[in-house]
Amino acid sequence: MDFRNKRRIAIFGAGICDGEIYQLAYEVGRLLASEAIVLTGGLGGVMEAASRGAVEAGGVTVGVLPGNRAEEANPYVQIPIVTDLGQARNVVLVRTAEAAIAISGGYGTLSEIALALKMWKPVVGLKTWPGIEGVHYVQSAEEAVHKVFELLSIKKVSL
Amino acid sequence: MDFRNKRRIAIFGAGICDGEIYQLAYEVGRLLASEAIVLTGGLGGVMEAASRGAVEAGGVTVGVLPGNRAEEANPYVQIPIVTDLGQARNVVLVRTAEAAIAISGGYGTLSEIALALKMWKPVVGLKTWPGIEGVHYVQSAEEAVHKVFELLSIKKVSL
Amino acid sequence: MDFRNKRRIAIFGAGICDGEIYQLAYEVGRLLASEAIVLTGGLGGVMEAASRGAVEAGGVTVGVLPGNRAEEANPYVQIPIVTDLGQARNVVLVRTAEAAIAISGGYGTLSEIALALKMWKPVVGLKTWPGIEGVHYVQSAEEAVHKVFELLSIKKVSL
Amino acid sequence: MDFRNKRRIAIFGAGICDGEIYQLAYEVGRLLASEAIVLTGGLGGVMEAASRGAVEAGGVTVGVLPGNRAEEANPYVQIPIVTDLGQARNVVLVRTAEAAIAISGGYGTLSEIALALKMWKPVVGLKTWPGIEGVHYVQSAEEAVHKVFELLSIKKVSL
Repeated sequence: MDFRNKRRIAIFGAGICDGEIYQLAYEVGRLLASEAIVLTGGLGGVMEAASRGAVEAGGVTVGVLPGNRAEEANPYVQIPIVTDLGQARNVVLVRTAEAAIAISGGYGTLSEIALALKMWKPVVGLKTWPGIEGVHYVQSAEEAVHKVFELLSIKKVSL
Repeated sequence: MDFRNKRRIAIFGAGICDGEIYQLAYEVGRLLASEAIVLTGGLGGVMEAASRGAVEAGGVTVGVLPGNRAEEANPYVQIPIVTDLGQARNVVLVRTAEAAIAISGGYGTLSEIALALKMWKPVVGLKTWPGIEGVHYVQSAEEAVHKVFELLSIKKVSL
Repeated sequence: MDFRNKRRIAIFGAGICDGEIYQLAYEVGRLLASEAIVLTGGLGGVMEAASRGAVEAGGVTVGVLPGNRAEEANPYVQIPIVTDLGQARNVVLVRTAEAAIAISGGYGTLSEIALALKMWKPVVGLKTWPGIEGVHYVQSAEEAVHKVFELLSIKKVSL
Repeated sequence: MDFRNKRRIAIFGAGICDGEIYQLAYEVGRLLASEAIVLTGGLGGVMEAASRGAVEAGGVTVGVLPGNRAEEANPYVQIPIVTDLGQARNVVLVRTAEAAIAISGGYGTLSEIALALKMWKPVVGLKTWPGIEGVHYVQSAEEAVHKVFELLSIKKVSL
């Protein structure tokens, strides 16, 4: 199995979320699975849901963890990256991704959106922090996945 | 000289700014100088202006630099911290500060505001990203400095 | 495919090496492939050889890169982790691994050996920095791989 | 007071040490105080002793801390840099220093010596890890301080 032809797409989102957001993130992960390595911060909530969706659809998941133990990863992280960098792990997650989809989220997610835009990475927003210039806002999991690949393909062409 | 009774206050802001914002950041640095160690990202624009204001008023300045050379610091950084961590230096800057004043700024500044709020640090906003819950918005340099010390003193009492 | 039952084993070594060391690292990677995710710093020399050995034997490889571009990875890195942390990426590599095999190497490798021992990770040494207390020195690729799994199994039992 | 004409010199050493090593580190800090900003990892043992020596001789001390609280600094750290980066703070300490003196120490110190040599920083060794090519070994605090300034002045000339 070779992952080198897959895109690396990060899902940003909070460690705690309600059922609706969990379902949305699960669906995003599921839809990304065939074409992308799904990267998250490796913890619960949106991170777990997206990883779970990807794994249950046969995909590969990486969790970039803030703490010093692989065991803090949710059960759907296949490859834990144990950083022990605290919030600085957000920067590693963002830098590793080619593009990102932000789903709901709190201040941690906002920091990831800002870092991604700072690094010129395409960011798709789904029920997340509103009104940030540069974020491509969408309304559904399908739209989010479609948009992120569209942005990546434009980027590919234009480089 | 002893700095251990000084508060550590970060100024967040972009590496390029217009004259009005430069003047505002300079004034904030100047007003902070007697009571605080002024921390910035160490580069130009708002970071330089705040450091300059602090130094010219007899204060102490620390610059937490993204690159691998102390020479990239602006001339008003007295103590360069050379991280070579890229944007992850934002996290070190935020973590080191007890509170922050964000002045204008782009995506880097937004990431610092978000990280500071994530870490429960008081954040004062001056002509910066609007509408972020948790940021204490003010209109002048004087107000910013007054507010940041007020927030720190409340924090002190409540702990 | 599920990687969660695989051990995460890092290979430490220099970015430039001679043919004999390259062959040794290749062999170590090849022998690890069925049981482990092979982690390296993602660049050339020993890092490339170990990744190549693992990939050519059907294994999975992760490269924890110091710079800000996935393209700096050698062609045998399947999952690049782009840290932009400079030498601090060594810490992420070490922390992520459950155990490590150091092969030859310079100061970067020595820092990784020291960090791994600091974090209580088993370290096997093959033609590397001599005389470091705590390193399990071996003479061949086969011995190295046998020893690293032996140390991991002891650790597993004793916890 | 201006620190910009001072050299930045790191003291590497363990967080626990015996009285003889403490005295040695204290003396090194004291002798550095007039010419250098003394940088350490900010914790106890050698780090505390060197900071104490520097502060008691009127110098300035910076502590680059691994955790997320300034309060973990020893009482002689005047400017705490709170990284929350765990062992990756070693890299920030090393990168910030222009040169280093390693005193005794364990694996953490060994990692700092190796990182400093990797970054081409002069390293003086005092009762520390023996036999590392590139380390300038000395026998006393006076020699250590004399040697570190000699190496810095050579470096300055040769650049």
